[in-house]
Amino acid sequence: MNSEFLGLDILNGYQFTNQQLDTIMNTAAQYEKRVKQGEVIRDLEGMVVASLFFEPSTRTRLSFESAINRTGAKCISMADAKASSQSKGETLQDTISTIDGYVDVIVMRHPEKGSANVAADIAVHPVINGGDGAGQHPTQALLDIYTMRKEKGHIGGQTITFLGDLKYGRTVHSLGYFMQQLENKMIFCSPEELKMPDDITNELRARGADITETTDVAAALAASDFVYVTRVQRERFPDQESYDRCKGSYIVNKELIGRAKKGITILHPLPRVDEISTEIDSYEGAAYFRQAHNGMYLRMALLGLVTGRV
Amino acid sequence: MNSEFLGLDILNGYQFTNQQLDTIMNTAAQYEKRVKQGEVIRDLEGMVVASLFFEPSTRTRLSFESAINRTGAKCISMADAKASSQSKGETLQDTISTIDGYVDVIVMRHPEKGSANVAADIAVHPVINGGDGAGQHPTQALLDIYTMRKEKGHIGGQTITFLGDLKYGRTVHSLGYFMQQLENKMIFCSPEELKMPDDITNELRARGADITETTDVAAALAASDFVYVTRVQRERFPDQESYDRCKGSYIVNKELIGRAKKGITILHPLPRVDEISTEIDSYEGAAYFRQAHNGMYLRMALLGLVTGRV
Amino acid sequence: MNSEFLGLDILNGYQFTNQQLDTIMNTAAQYEKRVKQGEVIRDLEGMVVASLFFEPSTRTRLSFESAINRTGAKCISMADAKASSQSKGETLQDTISTIDGYVDVIVMRHPEKGSANVAADIAVHPVINGGDGAGQHPTQALLDIYTMRKEKGHIGGQTITFLGDLKYGRTVHSLGYFMQQLENKMIFCSPEELKMPDDITNELRARGADITETTDVAAALAASDFVYVTRVQRERFPDQESYDRCKGSYIVNKELIGRAKKGITILHPLPRVDEISTEIDSYEGAAYFRQAHNGMYLRMALLGLVTGRV
Repeated sequence: MNSEFLGLDILNGYQFTNQQLDTIMNTAAQYEKRVKQGEVIRDLEGMVVASLFFEPSTRTRLSFESAINRTGAKCISMADAKASSQSKGETLQDTISTIDGYVDVIVMRHPEKGSANVAADIAVHPVINGGDGAGQHPTQALLDIYTMRKEKGHIGGQTITFLGDLKYGRTVHSLGYFMQQLENKMIFCSPEELKMPDDITNELRARGADITETTDVAAALAASDFVYVTRVQRERFPDQESYDRCKGSYIVNKELIGRAKKGITILHPLPRVDEISTEIDSYEGAAYFRQAHNGMYLRMALLGLVTGRV
Repeated sequence: MNSEFLGLDILNGYQFTNQQLDTIMNTAAQYEKRVKQGEVIRDLEGMVVASLFFEPSTRTRLSFESAINRTGAKCISMADAKASSQSKGETLQDTISTIDGYVDVIVMRHPEKGSANVAADIAVHPVINGGDGAGQHPTQALLDIYTMRKEKGHIGGQTITFLGDLKYGRTVHSLGYFMQQLENKMIFCSPEELKMPDDITNELRARGADITETTDVAAALAASDFVYVTRVQRERFPDQESYDRCKGSYIVNKELIGRAKKGITILHPLPRVDEISTEIDSYEGAAYFRQAHNGMYLRMALLGLVTGRV
Repeated sequence: MNSEFLGLDILNGYQFTNQQLDTIMNTAAQYEKRVKQGEVIRDLEGMVVASLFFEPSTRTRLSFESAINRTGAKCISMADAKASSQSKGETLQDTISTIDGYVDVIVMRHPEKGSANVAADIAVHPVINGGDGAGQHPTQALLDIYTMRKEKGHIGGQTITFLGDLKYGRTVHSLGYFMQQLENKMIFCSPEELKMPDDITNELRARGADITETTDVAAALAASDFVYVTRVQRERFPDQESYDRCKGSYIVNKELIGRAKKGITILHPLPRVDEISTEIDSYEGAAYFRQAHNGMYLRMALLGLVTGRV
């Protein structure tokens, strides 16, 4: 048992030491092995976990809820906040105070930045942040690095290109901090309109990150062990013309992968629309569905660790 | 264990041999017995099943989810697709690829015909079609024949009247193939506006089915061991007048049952509105609620068989 | 095992003898102890309970569903009736007849008064009323008296002030009958516009209740062992002015509690908006979140008793 994690809230992407990250990754790997062996896992038997989605997200919710069930816990679920007491004017603090009395762990997604911290302050039981608006989404970043480690056998001293919409894509914001912490080089490759916000790039550099900014996709991929693709959404552009111009340049297809570093691993937080061509899906470095599946093991690990049951 | 079913997708109403149907029915009967004896069933312990309703249907969803729970599996549930990634433009293939990594079986209802086959093609785990639009609804047809067998002690060599809306009622379309396969005679009894589509009637006859078409309800029921009633919906008629004229003739009530073959079994896929008078509910041949309850055992059987756990 | 409760429907707040209330309270206390000791409870193992919310209420639903899971049963859940067969014109009786075949207990909230009785009449399995519109909400009243007993060590021979909206607040209606039955004095303290309906006050008095009516909040609280606060909703008033005038007088804050009877226990069915100041939350008599948490143990007790498993 790692008593270090017992009762811990999982709130952001920069709260962990490298050693803690290692513990999380190793625990996720153990769960992956146990699930694949068909073990009936009872680690959290007798526990109930709340899955509270104040903002709907079926994919993330089902990933958490399968993780809850697979650890042996039971789940109570709110898929949508429209019918919640908050719609009657209740504060988030009161809602959490109430539900905290029913369960052993609270998983929460909420549209407001900082809400996960508000919940963690009031709850006796551990809170796992499943995304708080423009804030953090730590379980996504953790499953990303779990995937990188698994795909390459180790993590650190590598190069990753962040491709596409780096301005609004919050997953690349959190992941940037982890990459710096794990001493990976970063290439930020995006249309000018969607480049990584300067404050993040500056802070990462101040922490010692090795960052290159470019618009040359082929050159970026030729130098990278990983490419992390994000969706370029039409609504981010002032007009259709500038969207169309950009979009085509940031589609990962067979031709582009042919010019990339051999064995490059392709990551994507999903859902994908057309920024990765389906012709790539059978390429062995196309890791995005495995990445989604890894989310379940990673979330099992967090549940096991914060309850002290693993 | 019936390894013949291990990993099998349940997609349509005509994929089974008579022997396979027999295995499914016997397995359902075993589950019914075990549940009624109060056994704590652990056949699927450690497994997680996704219940994905891209089109809401509370009745079918709750039947599947009680079946999932009663086999000892756990359930992750999507009651409504509005918040799903598909609303962000994700393909059904990508959604299924993701969720396939979380679970051991996928139950899916989807409004588009053919979607169950699309899901089955992409998923590693077995897919059970819970209705794909105007396509198939195999678990309904299977629970119908399970009910017929249970009510009469056997199935085959009998006569069934399909009554009401035979044009739009997809359940009678699937069931027609099973009736032919099991060598039951069929009487199609409906208003002219709602008769069985010719292509279905012709194909059933080409396969050797013995079919009579009539508008004489009393005569049909006098010759039938079963009557399968479907809802006559007002919106299917050009005007209120033709609806009113038809509707009255297709209501199953005490008077009509008094003129029917003695011991006739009344079936209905539910929900019923007023096409079966509630005065009939206490008639011992009124099997429609038992039919609904049988759905749970039948679905348990399919879950047990496709996972190889029974 | 209390066979007296086996198969019993829990429908209203006046169906229990004092001895039955005692059994329910003691059973809830046992469950509270067992949950807090971390016991893996299997009392209802193998059972499935339906949680049917024809009217959304996330708080009550999650309380019931955590109770269902914590007793060892499994749960099938309908959070919202919009997609139900009732929207297709099915009667409540038919819906319940169907689901009754899937489960061992039915928990139901429904917007129509009397619907719980309709369901109980048709269902073979026990029905627990989770609120039927303007009708009854017995589990709320039971958790209220469980909380009163727990906070003070006993119940009976005490004084309780009902504060705020006594006209529309159905929880105080049910609780009034219990207070009379348990020989507690009652003070009804509300704005004139929101006073307890005369028919209820008269009936309670006819049953022998000791009731005082007043608008003097401070005097009421100075004489009370408990204050049961309810929300004063703006939409209950003819205009903003009369709302503003009333509202201020019925806010429980530090100053008001300073003038109340020493050790007064503050209860509230939640959600609270601003009728209890958050500065009171740390006061040791502020029992409203403990009260919400008690709901889970009370509901576990009812589930255990009606299934004969405890």
